[in-house]
Amino acid sequence: LTSRLPNVGTTIFTVMSALAAETGAVNLGQGFPDFDCDPALVDAVTQAMRAGHNQYPPMPGVPALRQAVAAKMQALYGLACDPNSEITVTAGATQAILTAVLAVVHPGDEVIVLEPCYDSYVPNIELAGGVAVRVPLTPGSFRPDFDAIAAALSPRTRALMINSPHNPSGMVWSAADMQRLQDLLAPTDVLLISDEVYEHMVFDGQQHQSAARFPGLAARAFIVSSFGKTYHVTGWKVGTVVAPAPLTAEFRKVHQFNVFTVNTPMQHALAAYMADPAPYLELPAFYQRKRDLFRQGLASTRLRLLPGEGTYFQCVDISALAVPERDLPEAAFCQWLTREIGVAAIPLSAFYGNGFDQKVIRFCFAKKDDTLREALQRLARL
Amino acid sequence: LTSRLPNVGTTIFTVMSALAAETGAVNLGQGFPDFDCDPALVDAVTQAMRAGHNQYPPMPGVPALRQAVAAKMQALYGLACDPNSEITVTAGATQAILTAVLAVVHPGDEVIVLEPCYDSYVPNIELAGGVAVRVPLTPGSFRPDFDAIAAALSPRTRALMINSPHNPSGMVWSAADMQRLQDLLAPTDVLLISDEVYEHMVFDGQQHQSAARFPGLAARAFIVSSFGKTYHVTGWKVGTVVAPAPLTAEFRKVHQFNVFTVNTPMQHALAAYMADPAPYLELPAFYQRKRDLFRQGLASTRLRLLPGEGTYFQCVDISALAVPERDLPEAAFCQWLTREIGVAAIPLSAFYGNGFDQKVIRFCFAKKDDTLREALQRLARL
Ligand SMILES: CSCCC(=O)C(=O)O
Ligand SMILES: CSCCC(=O)C(=O)O
Repeated sequence: LTSRLPNVGTTIFTVMSALAAETGAVNLGQGFPDFDCDPALVDAVTQAMRAGHNQYPPMPGVPALRQAVAAKMQALYGLACDPNSEITVTAGATQAILTAVLAVVHPGDEVIVLEPCYDSYVPNIELAGGVAVRVPLTPGSFRPDFDAIAAALSPRTRALMINSPHNPSGMVWSAADMQRLQDLLAPTDVLLISDEVYEHMVFDGQQHQSAARFPGLAARAFIVSSFGKTYHVTGWKVGTVVAPAPLTAEFRKVHQFNVFTVNTPMQHALAAYMADPAPYLELPAFYQRKRDLFRQGLASTRLRLLPGEGTYFQCVDISALAVPERDLPEAAFCQWLTREIGVAAIPLSAFYGNGFDQKVIRFCFAKKDDTLREALQRLARL
Repeated sequence: LTSRLPNVGTTIFTVMSALAAETGAVNLGQGFPDFDCDPALVDAVTQAMRAGHNQYPPMPGVPALRQAVAAKMQALYGLACDPNSEITVTAGATQAILTAVLAVVHPGDEVIVLEPCYDSYVPNIELAGGVAVRVPLTPGSFRPDFDAIAAALSPRTRALMINSPHNPSGMVWSAADMQRLQDLLAPTDVLLISDEVYEHMVFDGQQHQSAARFPGLAARAFIVSSFGKTYHVTGWKVGTVVAPAPLTAEFRKVHQFNVFTVNTPMQHALAAYMADPAPYLELPAFYQRKRDLFRQGLASTRLRLLPGEGTYFQCVDISALAVPERDLPEAAFCQWLTREIGVAAIPLSAFYGNGFDQKVIRFCFAKKDDTLREALQRLARL
């Protein structure tokens, strides 16, 4: 049996969560909350099930949920989109991204990814028979390097994948960044896959610059989001893709032969829950407080804090630590940190094709305050 | 934008369900129950959510659910399989099949499908860059034609896809059929994708001949099943794949970059619910009674009943009808039947790549008795 993905093992998130469970470490590795969602959301699922919403929903998603997403795109980003032909509900953002890639990438097509990036992007491109063209974000700042992106564009470029707020760095693209991207792509027919799953986690008064705000980008974009991240239900696996009708038509051709449809009662519950925008409008303040708590706790350690403008991740540089393990490769350091210090983290090298090692690791602060305090106490031993 | 799936439109199931809704027809088209699942199963989901099972489960699935599936495979089919390395929980059977295909089919590989077949199979193969080799089931009986399968095997054959109990025909492979398949594949390294989503719907005292019962098949098979079909919750989108460890390893590489994981509370609920085998052991009698009710009602019409050994589908030949519409193509006949008679059905031509028209249409009898009676009353007008 020859592997279709010979370079792929089990994802780092699975590996580190398993190690954390095995060793009893505080798990700040994989990105998920350790607190519960709003009980009202749970009750809404129960109500939907009891109302008999347990069979296939329409293939593109429950209409009320698509309408709620359309209303949100209009209210937050000024994008008018048609829920019938431009919004599809997916089994999470990862499925959305693979489906978009399979829908538009032909064998031999090039797709530009900006490294570091989420570990599914490149295998997704390879499964479609495409060629991933890896362009580094600016080293150190993780900001987009438009000269490098421009240099990577070729007549074979089918698509560019971007992600802001950015996992793992927490960096957020500015309006000027998005404008520059719009100008760069204007003369091309390159498609955009914009992974915006952390759209509601942007801090310090900044605003999320969705591709939806930029007509020249929105016209060529699959805009991907995730209810799991926004509503603290990563295990529900419901996401959305917003794309112009011709892109959505191709997307749905693949979607219907991938998952066909997405969990019905959860869709009904999310539709009802979205009627009130407060939960996502309050999310920046909610996570900014946790970020600040976590950063303040780390300030007294020898871990050097990188900026964190968005997402629920905080990156730190380990090179100033006093322990000899600081010289280990990031992945080995994270194993040591989990086993010996009792806190799991994710090595940034896992987000690079060549395992680039810059002595930076990622913590997830989507945790109860008590969990963060326990982790900080353990990390103080560093 | 050049389509990756230029020959694909919206699935017939979506089209006919939409038309049924629009016209107020009784929907015997798309395969899903119009009655509710066991309220205990709904309560189990509520309990799981309230217990906080709302974040990512382990990538291969909730351990208790994989253990329950392993126990069932042992009890029903005598297959010992390791839940850690040989069972993966999927977002339904359709996702399972695409993922298996993407995991093992390399560009240019041939995959044999037996027509008529579920409409996702061939596009799945095409998305992987493979070549679908279409072999007809024996015309009229829909039984496997082993000479035709043998003739289709080539050095480029990577996999064979089978489906028993068979959608759309309701035909069930016998032990002798499976034995013959085992013998035929023995000298090859062809993989098997065995779609067994109707495993618990086999009638008249026959037994489901899972690939799991045949060691020479189980050793090369992805065995796909669906909780949605078995427990009347098609909208929950949870299925499973059982495959030997090396196949499962490749499967999971793709799975983790497709959906990553599957709905957590539903997995916990299904695990708890599976502790009692009664619901699936009672399913044959439950559906056999509905089949008999439906067949008896049709016996007095000019629709000619085809045999129905399994699944929740009943096929009928329309060529002896007295109405002139009997001469329409099946798809047009189904449109007419929906609009004018008020009963939606699925044309068998939708299950063939070349639209082969044999004047046979498919009804789904997974409906309340009252729904079936209403449909029968309308069909009596034929
Ligand atoms: C789907 S993997 C876990 C969550 C995540 O996106 C991350 O940790 O980066
Ligand atoms: C996933 S489509 C609807 C159900 C089905 O399998 C069928 O009707 O054949």
